[in-house]
Amino acid sequence: MNAPVPPENVFDWLDAEAEKRASAGLVRQLRPRPPVAEELDLAGNDYLGLARDKRVAGAAAAAALRWGAGSTGSRLVTGTTELHTELEHELARFCGAQAALVFSSGFTANLGAVTALSGAESAIVTDKYIHASLIEGCRLSRADIAAVAHVDVKAFSHALSTRRKPRALVVTDSVFSVDGDIAPLGDLARVCRETNASLLIDDAHGFGVLGEGGRGAVHEAGLAGAPDVVATITLSKSLGAQGGAVLGPRRVIKHLVDTARSFIFDTGLAPSSAAAALAALNALKAEPELATKVRDASMNLAMQLKAAGFTLCVPEAAVISVHAPSPGEAVAWAGACAEQGIRVGCFRPPSVPDGISRLRLTARADLTESDVDRAVKVITATAPRGAFAS
Amino acid sequence: MNAPVPPENVFDWLDAEAEKRASAGLVRQLRPRPPVAEELDLAGNDYLGLARDKRVAGAAAAAALRWGAGSTGSRLVTGTTELHTELEHELARFCGAQAALVFSSGFTANLGAVTALSGAESAIVTDKYIHASLIEGCRLSRADIAAVAHVDVKAFSHALSTRRKPRALVVTDSVFSVDGDIAPLGDLARVCRETNASLLIDDAHGFGVLGEGGRGAVHEAGLAGAPDVVATITLSKSLGAQGGAVLGPRRVIKHLVDTARSFIFDTGLAPSSAAAALAALNALKAEPELATKVRDASMNLAMQLKAAGFTLCVPEAAVISVHAPSPGEAVAWAGACAEQGIRVGCFRPPSVPDGISRLRLTARADLTESDVDRAVKVITATAPRGAFAS
Ligand SMILES: Cc1ncc(COP(=O)(O)O)c(C=O)c1O
Ligand SMILES: Cc1ncc(COP(=O)(O)O)c(C=O)c1O
Repeated sequence: MNAPVPPENVFDWLDAEAEKRASAGLVRQLRPRPPVAEELDLAGNDYLGLARDKRVAGAAAAAALRWGAGSTGSRLVTGTTELHTELEHELARFCGAQAALVFSSGFTANLGAVTALSGAESAIVTDKYIHASLIEGCRLSRADIAAVAHVDVKAFSHALSTRRKPRALVVTDSVFSVDGDIAPLGDLARVCRETNASLLIDDAHGFGVLGEGGRGAVHEAGLAGAPDVVATITLSKSLGAQGGAVLGPRRVIKHLVDTARSFIFDTGLAPSSAAAALAALNALKAEPELATKVRDASMNLAMQLKAAGFTLCVPEAAVISVHAPSPGEAVAWAGACAEQGIRVGCFRPPSVPDGISRLRLTARADLTESDVDRAVKVITATAPRGAFAS
Repeated sequence: MNAPVPPENVFDWLDAEAEKRASAGLVRQLRPRPPVAEELDLAGNDYLGLARDKRVAGAAAAAALRWGAGSTGSRLVTGTTELHTELEHELARFCGAQAALVFSSGFTANLGAVTALSGAESAIVTDKYIHASLIEGCRLSRADIAAVAHVDVKAFSHALSTRRKPRALVVTDSVFSVDGDIAPLGDLARVCRETNASLLIDDAHGFGVLGEGGRGAVHEAGLAGAPDVVATITLSKSLGAQGGAVLGPRRVIKHLVDTARSFIFDTGLAPSSAAAALAALNALKAEPELATKVRDASMNLAMQLKAAGFTLCVPEAAVISVHAPSPGEAVAWAGACAEQGIRVGCFRPPSVPDGISRLRLTARADLTESDVDRAVKVITATAPRGAFAS
């Protein structure tokens, strides 16, 4: 090549940024795990314990052999198999929606839903703690954006009634991913209806956990099948697989097929993941008590941690968040738990919207009482002094 | 719920937009395919024919059983298995890069790379025909964006030397996804070095097809391992699986782990897809002639179509694009091909950057001469009159 000697310095700025992160205690480390972890997992999002269920893993394996490892193209070219269509049909039916559309991830489902349902003619009003993928969707949308105070219905109402665009879309998580608290979905729907806005709910952490038989927070709020409500879910949490979906009125789903860039320009979900999600959905239908079990385990864990003196919210679903005094102490705490056989999540800026670092614990349907007891003992014994509510 | 009666009209604007698309011939239809298609597939991106290879599909199946159907969490929490790390290591080694990072899709890999390597302090100069996922990355980046004339090195040079930001990132596809033509990577690297810019190359359609043993266009251009060059690839085309990766200097990969939002806030790739990509990479290492075979098949197909009188570019890789007179005729043409047993892609606005609709054909390493002959006969017999070069 006739290119000059490559300059070694164009990425020097990355080192400077890395140093800043290091001194703020914000360096992240990938920790590869073995097939069978020795630790008790209180960090993953496999809420129903289905990722390793024989029916689910077996369906993934069979689909890879039958359909091939990949879908081979975008959904509109060769990437839609009969499996994808069946999964869409079954998800819509289970959740009480008119139609569903499967994406390669919950992340791209959120990008697609937010951008395709807003646009330059639209206002978007969001809770300020929505998931990063929704935020990226808002940034891509060209809409007027107002991010209002967390779960503050009056603030939503005010932003909607003072908007300068005719159309409006309200965007919220159902269960917030960091703290596990829940949005006031019924009130938000009311406010939307009073102000002629549509409502997009990310039910990533509600689906499989909340509502009748795990139908999710949207169903529980009586909003399933509503003509003005759209839900997104992920196949990667309660369904133990990978992928995401948008659920809503038929015309919304058609619109996404024609216009959502993260749908049109992305390879279809792998057949094995679609098959796994379908098998997990069938498992949940066969055992609706899985949803109750995970909620019970979550409540039990939270109540014991609260009794031990930590600062946390009463969990609405399977996510429990315990405040830590600083990013550095959060990392050390999570590390000490891991050393004693308990894997917990550790969330620090910029993954936390309020700048407060925390341990993030998740419950699973298959957690036993003795798992919970052991976890609380270890978390308490390893806690930094500042973690206890004063 | 105390919400008022749901208004039926908040999504009426979608119907109006649907009508506009319908009259412009731009409605899209999902066509689920059965496990074994009867048609000859000239539409997918399974360039090496590995998606259904027993080694690859078998590895996907085994991984689902061993590791579970999903990775259960984001890469920084529970979503990194030893498989992910091995895949990263092997991809980097094969491509001659210092390090690699696996994402859940090529789409999210591009979002992550563009946003994390630019920012408000940066200018981005792109080819105007880059892939949609790179465009979304640019829109998210907060950088100054200049999209310059297609493969116009002088235009890149001008935009870089007149930029108002100290830092700059050049973004291009290696092989452009619509027409299959190639970017002048050596010249772009030179211009970057003259103007102190870094270079990001999306090698989605080059990896597995171009370069020594399929090491890709970046390797072929002598840029593998360069300290100022970053490549992205997808695991969903030549590797027949799902997922994406970023390849580059170690400090770039570290920076992505710490800052790329589409990495941090997304569930890790399913173990079955990671295992499939790894097995496909091993198959390509064992049979480096796969890359030559797909290039030969592509050239053969293109030359015969050119001889039949169609308007097309000489293909640089496995993508061949044949101009159609209008969106409506493109759809009818592709439909007629399908009826006669040849599945071809049909690209219309907004998936084509220049507004010209076309059939998009792809070659595969396992296409036979008689496959190609049959395809050319059908494509010619079904062509609208305006498709022949005058
Ligand atoms: C609330 C929420 N929405 C969307 C996503 C993205 O889903 P996925 O990881 O399947 O891409 C996540 C988690 O990753 C999430 O927590
Ligand atoms: C050039 C290019 N980059 C990126 C992507 C996205 O990759 P993936 O489909 O694996 O998300 C594609 C195709 O889908 C592509 O053609």
